[in-house]
Amino acid sequence: MTRKVTIALDAMGGDCGPDAVVPAALAALEKDDSASFLLYGLPATLEQARAEAAGRFGNRLQFIPATDVVGMDESPGDALRRKRNSSMRLAIEAVRRGEADACVSSGNTGALMATARYVLKTLPGVDRPAIISAVPCLRGGYTFMLDLGANVGCSAQHLLQFAIMGSVVAEGILGLERPRVALLNIGLEDIKGNELVREAAELLSRSNLNYVGYIEGDGIFNGKADVVVTDGFVGNVALKTMEGVAGFIASILREEFRRNPIRRIQSVAAGTALNAVRGRLDSRRYNGATLVGLNGIVIKSHGGADAVAFENAMRTAIMEARKGVPVRIANLMEEQCIHA
Amino acid sequence: MTRKVTIALDAMGGDCGPDAVVPAALAALEKDDSASFLLYGLPATLEQARAEAAGRFGNRLQFIPATDVVGMDESPGDALRRKRNSSMRLAIEAVRRGEADACVSSGNTGALMATARYVLKTLPGVDRPAIISAVPCLRGGYTFMLDLGANVGCSAQHLLQFAIMGSVVAEGILGLERPRVALLNIGLEDIKGNELVREAAELLSRSNLNYVGYIEGDGIFNGKADVVVTDGFVGNVALKTMEGVAGFIASILREEFRRNPIRRIQSVAAGTALNAVRGRLDSRRYNGATLVGLNGIVIKSHGGADAVAFENAMRTAIMEARKGVPVRIANLMEEQCIHA
Repeated sequence: MTRKVTIALDAMGGDCGPDAVVPAALAALEKDDSASFLLYGLPATLEQARAEAAGRFGNRLQFIPATDVVGMDESPGDALRRKRNSSMRLAIEAVRRGEADACVSSGNTGALMATARYVLKTLPGVDRPAIISAVPCLRGGYTFMLDLGANVGCSAQHLLQFAIMGSVVAEGILGLERPRVALLNIGLEDIKGNELVREAAELLSRSNLNYVGYIEGDGIFNGKADVVVTDGFVGNVALKTMEGVAGFIASILREEFRRNPIRRIQSVAAGTALNAVRGRLDSRRYNGATLVGLNGIVIKSHGGADAVAFENAMRTAIMEARKGVPVRIANLMEEQCIHA
Repeated sequence: MTRKVTIALDAMGGDCGPDAVVPAALAALEKDDSASFLLYGLPATLEQARAEAAGRFGNRLQFIPATDVVGMDESPGDALRRKRNSSMRLAIEAVRRGEADACVSSGNTGALMATARYVLKTLPGVDRPAIISAVPCLRGGYTFMLDLGANVGCSAQHLLQFAIMGSVVAEGILGLERPRVALLNIGLEDIKGNELVREAAELLSRSNLNYVGYIEGDGIFNGKADVVVTDGFVGNVALKTMEGVAGFIASILREEFRRNPIRRIQSVAAGTALNAVRGRLDSRRYNGATLVGLNGIVIKSHGGADAVAFENAMRTAIMEARKGVPVRIANLMEEQCIHA
């Protein structure tokens, strides 16, 4: 039997707010009988959502009013101090109290991380939570990459902790036995890179993890590692560069298949093949990054997420909740400390 | 009248060696009446090249024998000490002696940089040479990015020097008046990023350059900056990530347009549109990075370059030679020092 889970949703986050979150929740309720949702938002939003749900899902969909909304440009400190009744804060509090197994928000990343860290605290043995996400790679696989921007200026010890957390997430979500962990570097030889990377390589070699060595930027996509570990500055640049290239190539496809009437006929003639390519380039498929290392599951959905994208982020939340990712991380952290 | 230039070519570098370099040289000789080439290689290679040229280009194509070849995995130190008669070294020496206006090699990057630095020296005011290359962006434009991997662990002062060098290259190659210079960062707000970036932003704001602020990884492709400046570790990861994503998407295109007989018919039906997309994704178009900041022009062609790719790298060499890039950098460096 599928394990029952309850997910808290910040209905006010992101550019689309409830227009993405409400339809995504209704779609997920239809598909997954064992999932329930707590919807946090301003009263007007909740009324509309209640009307859309039309009582179809009973207590699998509950509405909890919030009085504040965290702005997309608000500073993390302000959000934390001044927005104690925000939809974001209340969704995270539900995780802390055990009323929800995970929460999802498309809101401001800095505010989400600061609030989650304050409310949930980090797991024992974790100095710094990180942001992790799945990146598609060749042959339909995925590579998990962290840190994607929560930590600038990491130590080798932090990178080791990221590797442990990444391993647990890859194990939980991809169902892998011993995920292969690689360090992002600018060459494959031992002498390449900076001191941080070489020191982290040393720590990883001595750990219980399945450490497979260095990987370069182009290696992220070749399926040779399940987890790619890097500092938050480099990881964020790499992630945004990926998004940039994918968007650039999508625009090339659009341009070339619309250039003139003949090209537009070719676009129709390319039919399912072109649609399949477009589908695989659709960034909404890959939405949902985890704030990992916290005593609870918090999923960050892209600020621009629509209902399709938000539903994918919710799916990540549900999977991590069913696998009990934070408990597994805490166990592996402890094991690692004993062996260190 | 187009300025006459002579380019020294290392015929032995890269995976293809003379099989790429010789046809590329012959093609360039056909297209550009004002370009001459000095071909450096092992005697057997030169004999074959001479036979292929069949005397068609007179003294616009000269053959100079080398006795050594620098291996792709050879350490820079070994290449420098032990391969004094390598095709790579002789091509760089030709630039130093003024016999060539630039040189091009697909050989080992580390050896090329170490040898070029030793033989040509850096320009006055330049602490560290960098690697710069053009990245395609929206609406058919280009963005120059540096450093792409020569320097790990830069200071803010180094980033300022990279910005000056990048400006001159963008001005020379793109013909821009005051190229817009941006710093690669993980957010657009002033408080974002690490200390290095914030300190460099301070220096750039006070410089004579057209500094436009921070840019994120996805911003590289939107045409909002002509020059993107970053540390060599981050730049190399970003560049290789771009290559990785582009290769991954090219493989998705191949897969989806070959999946079954119907898809193969769709591929034919997509005709010129699909070919245009493939053409624009062809990495050979973008081949040729400059080792900038040296007292001479050295172009690094990709190790896997074929004749088409190598010819593009040669084109960069010719353009930089005609624009006198190193002299312009030296002038701007001096000007910058006076204003600092």
